[in-house]
Amino acid sequence: MVPISVNSSKILIGDGLIDNIRLAITDLTCPCNVLIVSDSNVSKFYVGKVKSQLDKLNFEVYIYVLSPGEQYKSLNTIEKIYAILSQNFMSRCDAIVAIGGGIVTDVAGFAAATYNRGMKLIFVPTSLLAMIDASIGGKNGVNSEYGKNLIGTFYNPKLILIDPEVLKTLPQNELHCGIAEAIKYGCIKDEKLLDILENSDIGNYLNEIIYRSIMIKKEFVEKDEFDLGYRMHLNFGHTIGHAIERLYNYEKISHGQAVSIGMNIITKISEMMNLTQKGTLDRLSLVCKKYSLLTGDDLFFSNTDKISEIILHDKKILDNYLNLVLLKKIGESFIYKISSENIVDFIKGEYLI
Amino acid sequence: MVPISVNSSKILIGDGLIDNIRLAITDLTCPCNVLIVSDSNVSKFYVGKVKSQLDKLNFEVYIYVLSPGEQYKSLNTIEKIYAILSQNFMSRCDAIVAIGGGIVTDVAGFAAATYNRGMKLIFVPTSLLAMIDASIGGKNGVNSEYGKNLIGTFYNPKLILIDPEVLKTLPQNELHCGIAEAIKYGCIKDEKLLDILENSDIGNYLNEIIYRSIMIKKEFVEKDEFDLGYRMHLNFGHTIGHAIERLYNYEKISHGQAVSIGMNIITKISEMMNLTQKGTLDRLSLVCKKYSLLTGDDLFFSNTDKISEIILHDKKILDNYLNLVLLKKIGESFIYKISSENIVDFIKGEYLI
Repeated sequence: MVPISVNSSKILIGDGLIDNIRLAITDLTCPCNVLIVSDSNVSKFYVGKVKSQLDKLNFEVYIYVLSPGEQYKSLNTIEKIYAILSQNFMSRCDAIVAIGGGIVTDVAGFAAATYNRGMKLIFVPTSLLAMIDASIGGKNGVNSEYGKNLIGTFYNPKLILIDPEVLKTLPQNELHCGIAEAIKYGCIKDEKLLDILENSDIGNYLNEIIYRSIMIKKEFVEKDEFDLGYRMHLNFGHTIGHAIERLYNYEKISHGQAVSIGMNIITKISEMMNLTQKGTLDRLSLVCKKYSLLTGDDLFFSNTDKISEIILHDKKILDNYLNLVLLKKIGESFIYKISSENIVDFIKGEYLI
Repeated sequence: MVPISVNSSKILIGDGLIDNIRLAITDLTCPCNVLIVSDSNVSKFYVGKVKSQLDKLNFEVYIYVLSPGEQYKSLNTIEKIYAILSQNFMSRCDAIVAIGGGIVTDVAGFAAATYNRGMKLIFVPTSLLAMIDASIGGKNGVNSEYGKNLIGTFYNPKLILIDPEVLKTLPQNELHCGIAEAIKYGCIKDEKLLDILENSDIGNYLNEIIYRSIMIKKEFVEKDEFDLGYRMHLNFGHTIGHAIERLYNYEKISHGQAVSIGMNIITKISEMMNLTQKGTLDRLSLVCKKYSLLTGDDLFFSNTDKISEIILHDKKILDNYLNLVLLKKIGESFIYKISSENIVDFIKGEYLI
């Protein structure tokens, strides 16, 4: 198993890694204090396993289990984590080990980045979405009453341990939510990855799907660690996707479903405008449907006014221009700049270049 | 006026800079939103001046004035700043301009580092301590109920504007508090700086004192941006100093006074142990007294038990060793490693090597 490096993180992918986590943790000095952060859905499966191995290394292990759900991705949760760290005199030399999906890694990442100006951080992502997206690239964050991920930093974990076997216990709809991001990676940069997703039984290809997805994310985040330009290609499907999530108040429509709708709608529009190779939308929508992902015509076109309005308030609008990520064809994305005044027409498919 | 660069910060030093701030702000694009953060002691002198110049640049300017005092260096204040930033739809492209002493720059720095994963940041330090220490090197932070600066990040402002003329309105005891840090820089690295502090009317040498102090801090923080080793030389006098501040619950004894006591006591002990050139303490204590800084024998030696206990819980104790910064002579510091079990004897001057 050859480790991948992304920024300053070392990433290991391997079946059964969770059962051998102590072998992977080579750079934590001993004695060391560890706070495991997890959520109550995940903790029953893995926290005991990880703790018993850390105990064997003579680490002092503390555990914080948060309730699942976006509403706990908050400063309030962060303050609870600070309290545990402080009460146990933990220092920058000690570590947080996050075991869970994107909410857990985002919360634990922010706490680790800001306690004592940064402590050691290890991610053990347990959802496909966290394995290939949320845990990779250093972004962390919590929500505020004013918006999602409004508070956060860039901070790279020392180690990211990915054990694809844990996906066996992941509910299928959550697996498919992660697949939406894998489809995105295929669309913007890796036709072969899309080919695997289209034509294979993914149960046999999880390691390869994860590896290929991470390698694409690696390319974008290493060239643009602080998200100043090139990294925006990773937003394919996300401008409309985020607006849809917001329209439904982050309930009912999952992130993966929203991104799937976003990819399909934006490609429908761009294909109509001859910016995208004909046939791209057909291929994209077919692979999305294979994983029960929505393509969303009805939902989208009955809400274009509201969705446009949300996009107009997007924090990514700079100097009155929005950068949209479009596909030239499967495996190749490009940035299309559109001015604020044309966004509504564009979204409605009524904008002609 | 040649700018100094420290990490990714550009530092300008010049009399009257505050009145010409708009000339210095060349890298903020327009239109741009700016939140000025200041405290009520400082704001009446400078916030209006700065705002009127930013107005002329067509920036949209918001103002947040905090009450002075350590108790407002808190997450609670940070949340208020997040609210203003959010309510005005500010983004990563917008800027926070901090005008004030170390508390203001620490608070504003943390808010800027964590809002939207980092926005533009400009410091206008108005105390000598902030000019030569707090604002330089990227550390920010807030206090929690468990300790000072327990929460924070490393985040470099784009620009630090230092106008020594503002020191004319600074109360003398606060000026002297900053001089304690300048004495520290002289002791660890720059005998010429100490010579100026000993023999000159500092009113005529403020620019040079500031410049020399920053150049020393630059050397240490650039070699050790994330405070993993070399930067600890800057802690000369601070291990005991912090303990004294804590002993008095951060009241009655200012940071500068505590550091002055710390430098004198540690040098008294190290000179007694022949680790420091004879005569160093005499020179150090004389220059401290010139600026009404305490050398603290009575205060210290009547509290050695409590002070030792506080130091034993210092977050800087790693693997049961504490790194003390001692002087070989004026202008040259070195690290002296001492194990936990010997700290108490050392502090009491009863430890023989």
